[in-house]
Amino acid sequence: MPKKQGDENKIIAEELAKSQREISVSQFFERNRHLLGFDSPIKALATAVKEMVDNSLDACEEMNILPEIIVQIKEAGEGRYVVSVEDNGPGIVKEQIPRVFAKLLYGSKFHRFKQGRGQQGIGVSASVLYGQLTTGKASKITSRISPKKPTHYYELHIDITKNEPEILLDKEIEWTNKDHGTKVEIEMEGKYQKGRLSVDEYVKQTAISNPHLNITYINPLKEKLHFKRVTDQLPKETKEIKPHPYGIELGVLIRMMKNTDSRNLRSFLSNEFSRVSSGVSDEILTKAGVSPEMKPKDITHQDADKIFKAIQQVKIMSPPTDCLSPIGEELLIKGLKKEVEAEFYTGVSRSPAVYRGTPFQVEVAIAYGGKNMPQDELVRVIRFANKVPLIYQQSACAITKSILGTDWKNYGLQQSKGALPTGSAVLVVHIASVWVPFTSESKEAIASYPDITKEMKLALQECGRKLNAYIRKNVRAKEAKERVSLFEKYIPEVADALADLTGEKKPELIAKLQKILKKGLPALMAEANGETDGKAKE
Amino acid sequence: MPKKQGDENKIIAEELAKSQREISVSQFFERNRHLLGFDSPIKALATAVKEMVDNSLDACEEMNILPEIIVQIKEAGEGRYVVSVEDNGPGIVKEQIPRVFAKLLYGSKFHRFKQGRGQQGIGVSASVLYGQLTTGKASKITSRISPKKPTHYYELHIDITKNEPEILLDKEIEWTNKDHGTKVEIEMEGKYQKGRLSVDEYVKQTAISNPHLNITYINPLKEKLHFKRVTDQLPKETKEIKPHPYGIELGVLIRMMKNTDSRNLRSFLSNEFSRVSSGVSDEILTKAGVSPEMKPKDITHQDADKIFKAIQQVKIMSPPTDCLSPIGEELLIKGLKKEVEAEFYTGVSRSPAVYRGTPFQVEVAIAYGGKNMPQDELVRVIRFANKVPLIYQQSACAITKSILGTDWKNYGLQQSKGALPTGSAVLVVHIASVWVPFTSESKEAIASYPDITKEMKLALQECGRKLNAYIRKNVRAKEAKERVSLFEKYIPEVADALADLTGEKKPELIAKLQKILKKGLPALMAEANGETDGKAKE
Repeated sequence: MPKKQGDENKIIAEELAKSQREISVSQFFERNRHLLGFDSPIKALATAVKEMVDNSLDACEEMNILPEIIVQIKEAGEGRYVVSVEDNGPGIVKEQIPRVFAKLLYGSKFHRFKQGRGQQGIGVSASVLYGQLTTGKASKITSRISPKKPTHYYELHIDITKNEPEILLDKEIEWTNKDHGTKVEIEMEGKYQKGRLSVDEYVKQTAISNPHLNITYINPLKEKLHFKRVTDQLPKETKEIKPHPYGIELGVLIRMMKNTDSRNLRSFLSNEFSRVSSGVSDEILTKAGVSPEMKPKDITHQDADKIFKAIQQVKIMSPPTDCLSPIGEELLIKGLKKEVEAEFYTGVSRSPAVYRGTPFQVEVAIAYGGKNMPQDELVRVIRFANKVPLIYQQSACAITKSILGTDWKNYGLQQSKGALPTGSAVLVVHIASVWVPFTSESKEAIASYPDITKEMKLALQECGRKLNAYIRKNVRAKEAKERVSLFEKYIPEVADALADLTGEKKPELIAKLQKILKKGLPALMAEANGETDGKAKE
Repeated sequence: MPKKQGDENKIIAEELAKSQREISVSQFFERNRHLLGFDSPIKALATAVKEMVDNSLDACEEMNILPEIIVQIKEAGEGRYVVSVEDNGPGIVKEQIPRVFAKLLYGSKFHRFKQGRGQQGIGVSASVLYGQLTTGKASKITSRISPKKPTHYYELHIDITKNEPEILLDKEIEWTNKDHGTKVEIEMEGKYQKGRLSVDEYVKQTAISNPHLNITYINPLKEKLHFKRVTDQLPKETKEIKPHPYGIELGVLIRMMKNTDSRNLRSFLSNEFSRVSSGVSDEILTKAGVSPEMKPKDITHQDADKIFKAIQQVKIMSPPTDCLSPIGEELLIKGLKKEVEAEFYTGVSRSPAVYRGTPFQVEVAIAYGGKNMPQDELVRVIRFANKVPLIYQQSACAITKSILGTDWKNYGLQQSKGALPTGSAVLVVHIASVWVPFTSESKEAIASYPDITKEMKLALQECGRKLNAYIRKNVRAKEAKERVSLFEKYIPEVADALADLTGEKKPELIAKLQKILKKGLPALMAEANGETDGKAKE
């Protein structure tokens, strides 16, 4: 065996050193474009539309305006499409346009705790990156921030090795009838098709989870689909919150102490965290044995560690949850009804909970039964995170895992080991959070943090019980109906026998028996008529 | 509805602009540490060990040396552990140590096409990041590149907002009995437990997929496990290859033309790509209608696009596959036998294939039956990528999806809709590639590129057919055995009847019947004795 030693060995380490160098984040994601949701031409179109529409919806929410969005996908030669999304949002100031669209890891959403669709500063620039990678073409951005200001038009590339924007064109243009808003056009490789994993489906589901949205969608077949808003009510405004002490990690705490403007530890804790009054602050510091008057910048590693441990021991109120904007049970079911025809609908919107100091909230709805629902297939699952439909990566998602981890046999559905339940049902799950932990940058699936899957299972069980109650009543009602009709069927024969015995006349006996049936079995009849909610029919 | 317009609107875009800024890649992964495999304290230990051992194995392969690795996990207070990994690799030159360990997206492996465990320049610095985040402690690195050189010792932090190393200590130390190698010690939050998702399991499986490895592992319970190498043979050396033209994307092609040193297009294509002779180069350029004498730097976007399209139309030999280093059918089964007791083993090592111009190779092994194998559970799946065990994210993995997409009822196993097959079997799947596409930076699951899942399914089917042949023979053998023993059981009665009919004596008749049974049914007997390979027993 050739074991190289000594000088030769030295050469190896030094040879290796020559090729060691930095990898730009653009390079990294160019190679790993599947992490961003661009692993196939079909998915590329859906991902690009999603990233662009998410940004538009977030922008409109910032402005507190009802969103009007136009999505268009046009064929541009074989296997190439121009994807464009135009909104009526606040627009983007000129200086920021190049970096917002042509630099990965750049944005306003990462640095604040606020429920939003975007959170990473990657999405739309990833679409620009993919367009450039597959067609070499520049992306075109049009934006205006006010009728008093000009409209700016840019053509942008990303300088991949530097992860910086490269401006190919920068000019002012006329934008008729548009006071403010942004339009993005990206040419990319793609493949258009219909079905569960399509752009059409994404747009449809986005309309479900955003009932205040007007969206016009023109697909490559030039079909124009218009989803009108079902409410003029803007969703509850989401508020930015400070981090909660329970979710903070020691390393972050140390960094915060280094960078704070607070002059002492007491005010540091109460200024920079959620739910820390100066009383709570004192309690933490007393428990840690560190003086509240100390300068945060002077804290040693040991003291920081003590404060960190003391935080875990002090009872601190849960973070405020008014920062969350759920869809709501009612609108969730309403949306589901638009999409899925069923005979029974139910929903649950759980109270907010907390994972790693971050508030979140789970909502579940179920549609069940009806003649248009497939009978013996795995149930269909519709997933949303911060009102964004999750189309891909179903099996990797905490939502799916929570469904798999729920025993659906208890709730009237069939289920094989390790599989989704089978039956005529559609499950909808939504998670709203200040920070949704996704399994990849493409934000297609939710990571399985135990606190999150626990809440999901509780929501599914709660909904499952309602479903089961319906199914049981339904089955009972069917059986009751059968008993009643069986009894009715035999009335003439029973009447014959009774006539022989009593001498009474048969028609009268029949009338009597029918009366008994009506009187004595009203509950049974109610059930048999499908009045499962217990109210009698008028 | 409060629709803000004009000046107020302008303020919103400008307000938003104030908070728009760059996100450092360290910050991004600090927040998204689950993308790096650090989503739970249990997993954190396994991920850190994996990243460190992967690096050690890659380094030893660079040096062409049999790896000797020592892994230790020591408790360091409640919920904290020091993870250390020491190897006998080539070491790292002093100047590179800080960036290799305390800067994300830095390394030598990203920029070349070569089969290796690491490929992103993230793994080990991610472990340093996680240690710092959860304990605030510095990571300790010891490295020596030659007995003639001093041993360097570093204590490092990552400056999170800059993604640059912060050196807390840098000194020379004595390292007795170590000519060259690297030792990394990281203190981190963690939780130790045994089981399928443990460090113990990772180490065990690493020994299976690296039969040339000596690894000593001391777990927090101070149990010392020593896995000895089963072969002194180093695995086939992996070679660096150039990209194949079929896998190149237009954007990358354009960038390569801008950056090349080649003076004309002909030499550019044949120098920088795999399998492009100057003949093929001319064919491409003729088809594209672009002169082979043109300078690559002067190429317009239109011409680049033409060249790109021409590449797809010209027949180019598949990329060389000697760059791949599979485990091999024999060693895969050998490894499996060490881990799993079964009555039948079979394996398949497919020929190399190509996805996006990147060579890869799939290997599958199955262990089946035996009394220690669970009967009615979902089959166990063991996954490897470039010889690294994949412990987590099973359901998100192309391997799992390929198993789900195979109809195991054809191969003698039970299977419910949408679930893994059930039965007493263990499936092992390995993919070796110059670039394995993972679903996240934590490299826990393989992305489902169609070319990859296709190869996996073919390998599974091939293995499945072998399994089925065994099961069918096995079942037939059992049935034959039953028929023989049934016949044997009735011989006395048949003899009684025959004695009555023929007047012959019963003992003689019994002897005759037994002779018939032996003579006339030798094949049946052979089967019944389990000689399923068709050879008769001597």
